[in-house]
This record gives sequence, C-alpha cells and structure tokens, in this order.
Amino acid sequence: MDITKTEKARRKFHEIIYEADTLAGKLFDLLLIFLILVSIAAVMLESVESIQARYGAELEIVEWVITIFFTLEYIGRIIAVKRPWKYICSVQGILDLLATIPAYIDLVFPGLHFLISIRAVRLLRIFRILKMGQFVGASDQLVLALKKSRMKIIVFLFSVIVLCVILGTVMYIIEGAESGFTSIPVAVYWTIVTLTTVGFGDITPQTPFGQFVSMVIMVLGYGIIAVPTGLVTAEFMTKEGGTRNNTQVCPSCSADHHRDDARFCYHCGHSLDKYASDGLAPPSKN
Amino acid sequence: MDITKTEKARRKFHEIIYEADTLAGKLFDLLLIFLILVSIAAVMLESVESIQARYGAELEIVEWVITIFFTLEYIGRIIAVKRPWKYICSVQGILDLLATIPAYIDLVFPGLHFLISIRAVRLLRIFRILKMGQFVGASDQLVLALKKSRMKIIVFLFSVIVLCVILGTVMYIIEGAESGFTSIPVAVYWTIVTLTTVGFGDITPQTPFGQFVSMVIMVLGYGIIAVPTGLVTAEFMTKEGGTRNNTQVCPSCSADHHRDDARFCYHCGHSLDKYASDGLAPPSKN
Amino acid sequence: MDITKTEKARRKFHEIIYEADTLAGKLFDLLLIFLILVSIAAVMLESVESIQARYGAELEIVEWVITIFFTLEYIGRIIAVKRPWKYICSVQGILDLLATIPAYIDLVFPGLHFLISIRAVRLLRIFRILKMGQFVGASDQLVLALKKSRMKIIVFLFSVIVLCVILGTVMYIIEGAESGFTSIPVAVYWTIVTLTTVGFGDITPQTPFGQFVSMVIMVLGYGIIAVPTGLVTAEFMTKEGGTRNNTQVCPSCSADHHRDDARFCYHCGHSLDKYASDGLAPPSKN
Amino acid sequence: MDITKTEKARRKFHEIIYEADTLAGKLFDLLLIFLILVSIAAVMLESVESIQARYGAELEIVEWVITIFFTLEYIGRIIAVKRPWKYICSVQGILDLLATIPAYIDLVFPGLHFLISIRAVRLLRIFRILKMGQFVGASDQLVLALKKSRMKIIVFLFSVIVLCVILGTVMYIIEGAESGFTSIPVAVYWTIVTLTTVGFGDITPQTPFGQFVSMVIMVLGYGIIAVPTGLVTAEFMTKEGGTRNNTQVCPSCSADHHRDDARFCYHCGHSLDKYASDGLAPPSKN
Repeated sequence: MDITKTEKARRKFHEIIYEADTLAGKLFDLLLIFLILVSIAAVMLESVESIQARYGAELEIVEWVITIFFTLEYIGRIIAVKRPWKYICSVQGILDLLATIPAYIDLVFPGLHFLISIRAVRLLRIFRILKMGQFVGASDQLVLALKKSRMKIIVFLFSVIVLCVILGTVMYIIEGAESGFTSIPVAVYWTIVTLTTVGFGDITPQTPFGQFVSMVIMVLGYGIIAVPTGLVTAEFMTKEGGTRNNTQVCPSCSADHHRDDARFCYHCGHSLDKYASDGLAPPSKN
Repeated sequence: MDITKTEKARRKFHEIIYEADTLAGKLFDLLLIFLILVSIAAVMLESVESIQARYGAELEIVEWVITIFFTLEYIGRIIAVKRPWKYICSVQGILDLLATIPAYIDLVFPGLHFLISIRAVRLLRIFRILKMGQFVGASDQLVLALKKSRMKIIVFLFSVIVLCVILGTVMYIIEGAESGFTSIPVAVYWTIVTLTTVGFGDITPQTPFGQFVSMVIMVLGYGIIAVPTGLVTAEFMTKEGGTRNNTQVCPSCSADHHRDDARFCYHCGHSLDKYASDGLAPPSKN
Repeated sequence: MDITKTEKARRKFHEIIYEADTLAGKLFDLLLIFLILVSIAAVMLESVESIQARYGAELEIVEWVITIFFTLEYIGRIIAVKRPWKYICSVQGILDLLATIPAYIDLVFPGLHFLISIRAVRLLRIFRILKMGQFVGASDQLVLALKKSRMKIIVFLFSVIVLCVILGTVMYIIEGAESGFTSIPVAVYWTIVTLTTVGFGDITPQTPFGQFVSMVIMVLGYGIIAVPTGLVTAEFMTKEGGTRNNTQVCPSCSADHHRDDARFCYHCGHSLDKYASDGLAPPSKN
Repeated sequence: MDITKTEKARRKFHEIIYEADTLAGKLFDLLLIFLILVSIAAVMLESVESIQARYGAELEIVEWVITIFFTLEYIGRIIAVKRPWKYICSVQGILDLLATIPAYIDLVFPGLHFLISIRAVRLLRIFRILKMGQFVGASDQLVLALKKSRMKIIVFLFSVIVLCVILGTVMYIIEGAESGFTSIPVAVYWTIVTLTTVGFGDITPQTPFGQFVSMVIMVLGYGIIAVPTGLVTAEFMTKEGGTRNNTQVCPSCSADHHRDDARFCYHCGHSLDKYASDGLAPPSKN
C-alpha cells in the first residue's frame, strides 16, 4: 500500500538523518559536521578585513550554500520524525532552526552585526558528534561528575565572587584612580584577573601596600584553585573508584550497589553468589 | 495573658527573622538578600564617576532606604532573640551592626573614603544564604575539607613565602633597578606574581641569566601548585570515599573506625552484628 | 669460523649501541646524550646574534663533529641490528637519520632557515634516556595514565575549543576593533589566552560589558581546569590505588595483575583460591 | 664535682638552645625566629632607596646586633653539643655559620653586592620552626609525598623542557626577531612563560600562524598541569588512605584489605595474628 511505502521511506530517511549506525547515516553525519565547520570557518574568515575584501563574494556563496543545506536538513528532520512538534520545541530543534535563519534575516535587514553570534551558535550543533559511538561513555562521565559536584561548585564560586568584590573594594581604596583602579567595578575586574592567575597586566598596583594586598590575593588564588579541582577529582574518583560497588542486584530483595567483594546482600543477607548451591547456604540470619 | 501574647509575638517575630522554614521567613530572607545586593550595587555604581555625576542623588536615597531597613532589622533581631547580648557580640551581630552605620557616620563626618569598605562588608551578610536548605551540606563539606588540611596548607604557604623571598633576593641581585627590580620587596612581589603564574608583565627580566632564573621559578610554580591541590583533594576523598569506615563501635572492646562492611571487630574479634544472638558465634569457615 | 667471528663482533657492537647493561653500553649512551645536548646548545647559541658573530666558526666545527658522529652512529646501528630495514623505518630510525642530515643539506642548499627545526628534532632522541633503568617504571605509568584518560581528554578539549570559538565571537561583537579585537580569529586567540589563565595582556577588554564577559571567561577557565586534573588524577589513582589488581599470581600459569576479587585466573581459568580444596572445585564453567 | 657541674650546665644549655620542650627552650626559639625575621626585614628595607637614605644608620645597627647574637648563638651551639664537628659540618651548622658572616665580610671587603643573598639565606634557618610540635606531622607528610613521586616528577619536567625547547624553536622560526623572538633561548623563555600559563606579555606572537601555535601551546599547558597534580594527589592519597589497609590475607577466609592495626578478620572473625596458637583466641597480650 502507498502509506506503507511512505512510511518505509520515512523510516529510511529517519535512519539516515537521525542515526549513525548505517553507512548512509554515518556519511550524512560526517557531511553535516564538515558543513558546520566550513560555516564557522567562513564566519571567522569574513571577520578578517583583508580576507573579506578579497574573498567576500566567495564567502557569501558558501554562506548561502550552507544555509540552503541546513534549511533542507531542517525540513527533512521535521518530515522524518514522528512527532515533529516535539523536535521543533527541543533544544536541538531550536539550534537547528537558528542555524538556518541568519542569511534570511540578513536578506531582509542587511547589516545586523549581532547576526554573527547566531551564526557562531551553529557550532553548538557539533556537539552531536559526542553522540557518536566512542565518545558517549566519556562525555557522559564528564557531565555526571560535574553534575554531582554542582552544588559545591556553586557554593565555591559564590564565595569566590564575594571575596573578589570585597578585595576589589579594598584595592580601590588603597590604589585609587592614579594606578588605573578608576572605580570599584574596575577594581573587582582586576581582582578577578589576579585571583584566577590570568594577570593581564593592563592594570597593576603601584603603591607598596597595594602590592602587598596583591600578593595576598595571588597566593589566595594560587591556593584555592585546589578546591574546585579537589571537588571534581573526588567525584571522578567516586565514579572511577567505583570498583567498590558492582552492578550485582540481590536476587532476593533487589538491592543494588553491592561491594565488589560482597558475598551477601547488605540489605537482606541473602547470598549473592550465583553458583552457591543452596545447601551451602549462608547462615540464616546475616 | 498579656505576657504570653508578647511572648507569642516575639516567637512569631523570631520565626520570621531568624528562620527560613515558614513562608514569611523565606520571604524575609529573600528581601534581605535582595537589599544586600542592591546596597552593594549602589556602592559599586557610586564609585563610577559618570554614574555618580548623573545619579548621585538617587543612589544616596537608595543608601538611606537600605540603612533604615537594616537599622530596623538590627533592632528587630535584638528584640526577637532571647539572649540579645549573645547576638550583639556574635560575628553575625557585629556584621549586622556594621551594615547599618556607614550612612550615620557619613552624616557626622562626611567624606570619609574608607567607609566604602565598611559598606562592602555588607556583602559578608550574604553568606547567610548558605544556611538555606540545599547549600548546608555542600558548604559544610567544603569548610571541613579545608579545615582538615589546614595544618599542611600553612606549612606549604610558609615554604612558598620563604622560597619567594630568597628567589626574589636572587632576582634583585641579578637584574637590578634597570629592569624594574628596584628593591627586594619589589623583587619579591615580582617573584610571587611569577610563581603563582599570574604574570602581570609590568616587571620582566631583561638579562639572559635573569630570564633563566625566571624559567626555573615558573616551572617551580607550575609544578608545586600540585601540592595544595593534592592536599585538598586527599581530604575531599577521605571525606567522600569514607565508605571505608563507619561509626560503629565494638560492643566488646569499644574499638571504632570499622570498615563499613565489617561484621566482626578488627580488634577483639567480637561480632559487630547488633542482632546476632551470642550463641550464633561466627561460622568457622568464613 | 669467520662468520661466527663477525657475528660475535656484531653482537658485541649491538650490545654497546643498543643496550645499557654493560659498562661500554652505558658509556656509549652517556656520550650520545652529551652530544645531543651539545648539538642543541650549539643550535640555540647560534641563533643569538652576538654569539654567532664571535663564535660562528667554532659553532660550525661543533656542528660538523656532531654530524659526523651521528652519521657513523647511524651506520653502526644499521650494521649492528639484525633486521636493518625494520630499524630504518621505525620512528627511532627516522629520528636518527634526521639527526644527521641538516649539515649535509646546508652544504648543498645553504641558508635554509627551517633546517634549525630539524636540528632541534635531535632533542627528541634524548627520550632514549627514559629507557634507562630507573625511569622506565615512572614514564610507563605516566604514559598509561594519559592513554587511559585519552578519550575524556579529547571530549574535554573539544568542548573547550567550541566554547572558546563562541565566547570569542561574543567578545568580538562586544569589543570590536578599537580594543584590539580586530577579527574573530584574534578574538578567539584572546579567549584562549584568557581561559587558560595565561593572560598576556597584549589585548584587553575596554568596555564595561566586555570586562564583565571577561570575568565570566576567567572564572570559567579557573574552574574547568579542575576537569583535566580530575581526569588524570582519577586514572593515576586507579593505577596507584590498584584496588583493581592485587599481587596474586596464578598457581597454574603464573599470570599476575589479577583483579582483587578474581577467583579464577583471567588467563588460564585456574582457581586462584589458595584455600579451596580441590574437591570443592569451582563450577565447571567459570 | 666540678666536671659534673659543667656537664649539668652544658645539658641545661643544650636543652635551651636545641630543644623546645621547656619554657626557656621555647622562648629561645621564639627569640631566634623573631631575630631572623627582623634581619630579613632589615635586608629588604635596606634595598629600598628612600628607606636606606633615611634609616641607613639604624639598619646597620640592627644588622650588627643580629650578627653578634647569631655569632654568640653559633658559639653556644658548638659548646652545647656533644660532637661539635658533626654539628659544624651539618647543613644546619653551615647555615648557622653563613648567617653570622655577612657583616664581618662587609667589614673587610665593603660593598660586595652578592652578600645580600647570603643574608637572605638566613631565612632558611626559619625552617627550624617546622620542627616545632604541631607542624612535624604535616611537613613530614608533604615531604614524603613529594619524595615518593620524585621519579615521575623528574620524567614529567624533563618531557616539559624538551617540549619547550622544540616548540620554542618552532616559534622562533615562525615569528622571528620582529615580534621579539630575537633568538632561540628567548623563544624558549617565551614558550615556558606561555606553557606554565604565566603569560607576562613582554613578548607576544604577531603573525596569525604564530598565534595559532601559541594557542596550541596554551591549551597544552592548561592540560598537562593535570599531570603533576595527579601525581602528587595520588601519592597523598596512597599516604592518607593507604595507612588504612595492609596486605594481610585472612588465613581462614582469605578476605584482604584489612586495616593496618587489625588483629581479627573483618569478614570471618578469625585471628590475623601469625603467631596466634591455633587453639583460637589471640594471646592475652596482643
């Protein structure tokens, strides 16, 4: 029947566009990644004046080719998916839409400078790449470790910002406008530049006392970097070091997260040994 | 009775001001945090000359509104609490008092520049926020980890400072005033800027030998940052990884720090199982 | 017989050139390392104009002496080894060849500037030193830890680069050419300089909003450095903390590095349980 | 008897000078630390021209008072100790001698600039402070962790230096003298400044390709800082966590990872004491 045929085509289409298990799907993904990279390279090169002067026309053609491809791809994705609105409203869907529009807007309202940043957003689409086979595990672990230490990182960053505002105010009072600390916001900016050990050197303390406070700020920044590192490391370790617990599930009470060397369920005392004959059973209680 | 009524009102008042479990208490805390942020923003904006010129009057009004609110809040806290002197003398109480006074002092002795820093101290009050529900655990763990590695951090910082003074002196002798190393304190300042990898670039070595020593200092700074990180991470891990030992105490010999999965005391061999009948002594084989 | 004599000499030769167990072998290795260092020092000094002007002739002699030694050594290695082509095509062999040619090329085509970098490649030969006794274990562990966290490091670096391109574009739009952000590539360069906390200060944000975004970038860079550190530390720990592997040796096939909870040899399937009576043998399959 | 009296006095003297258990000993140590700090402060202040001009005479008096005290202390230490030569030849003894001589040398050969660095060496004496009670454990652990990862740190630093020389040469070829990369040593200096994320900004890449290579160097430096951190952290962990478990294996049930001070198996309760009579129960005294 015709509907089945359409359905079959839709499924085939879905496989190519959304999945990366078939050869066609893989090729499509690689083409997509290649075009994303080209579009970003075009945006970057366009901003270099000498290149824009000489290759402006060519870069515009590239932009239009990519825009048309992205537009077709967006339409294709809507057709291929079963619940189109769910896709359209998802983060992925919005990013895909955003990737198509800059050229069209530029056509209607030429010369909008901020469109560049929308075009740069295309780069976010490349994170799809992380969904490809070998990266999945690694990126999942990274995200998980960060998520788990989220609360502590917020508390830490909050404390650092409070510290920077107070130390910045102190530096503003000590140094004053002559040394470049023209206002408290600027002094706070300088404090963050110093505490994070970036140290641009556009503003530097000139008075001996200001230099002394700077030293304190620097040593502080040098020292407390240990805190986020420690946090994330600890989370990674709990993840990695999870040799302690294994994936066994108690056959009696379904408790999980048993120690790797556990022979009895920590919850109900039932034997976890798959090969243990019931005759050689663990002591009834415990 | 009247006293009971007053007492009731006081309790109600206490609940709102000090606690964050009721809706009123939560709203009060949020209002307080909002006003603290506004007051800090006002201090920061006031220091920007162009803003001060245009909105100086408005900012002063904001300052007074906040001062009056903080004053009322301070009085309220004294009334609401059972032992007012304990509150007044606590760090929290002193911070709360300091938060109210800058505007009053400015009224009596106008133009005291350092008052800004007292106004910045208001920001410290915001740490109250960490006492709100979800942050408690995280901030406690952070503080604990830092506290536990306190001694080692002191020894480490002490060694770093001694190192910086000696290396700074060496750089002063090598480079001299022509390169900007005008005195030993300045040279020590430069050494700390370099060792902590901040690197402002306001002073840089010019002689080949000075550059060589700088390289040593930089590699040193790059390497020894591992030490505080290692310290804090180790503490975090002991905290996190503390799955090893639990708080059980042997009922027979009172030894503690048993492994989490210990069933028998590592010291006297007595069963740790609370429910174990004494007749059911540990099985001979395992 | 003559062939045996040659063979003997070849073996002796092999021992000296390739191994470091005999005194002659050790001395040869030390001489080699010394000459590599001298050749690099010569390249470096030659590039200093004042030294080149005064000692140019001497440095050229040094270069030729080293070239001749390296050439003889290369020939020697080909002779001493059993399968010369395998050596010639190995990374080591190519490096050894590259080490000899710069002087010869310079003879034919004088004044090729990039030859210097080939001469610097000689330094890579010094990694042989890591094959000497006491370093083997340490360098193996380092390489292993890096290899194991390879995948996560790639994902991390990929995310950082995407982040830098997007943030760089944002900074380019905010700051523009007046502050030195003349094009997106330059802005991305600046973003990497800032995020990695290097902070040259050749380009710095001038607008308040640009400084605000800079602060975000800096705090971000200060924070996410925790991720690679956490990754590598976790790998080191898994290695060091060897909770995975224990020191058991299979009684049947002597395989070691068994998992801590292994009950059967991963290599031959023999039971690892020392106390298992053979009657209580493991179940037939595993 | 007279000899006994002298001996008694010597012991008393020894107690005061070398130990910190008695009140007199503690006071002496505090005085010493105070004088060391004063002498360092004097050296630092002397180097500041304006202070030297106004307080030069006073600072010289301070220097002489300290020199005389240190001289007396040095003589005292020789008298108080049993084997004077052992003390004189020890690192501590040499430092103590060095601390006394600058003023004397200055008397004979006035104006030797490098004497300042000898005076700065006095600061090393302050490490005595670490031998005071509460610091001993902490500093021992730090030193131990660094010592244990010594080999890996050497391999790591060696690789970093080789990397810096090669990358520096590459940058020298790319950028050349116009951008400040006047010679290979200077380029290597710049590479170390960049790789360690110090980033002075006195020399910066100007060509697009140079900036690209710089980005690679920066990301590399940002990434590989994880290695020393991971190394030291792993050692700290092995230290911290490693005291917990030992390599004992229960003779009854073969459970391992027993606490270091465990006397009974945590799993089956069997005695872990090798010398325990098989008749069960540990010997009364351990």
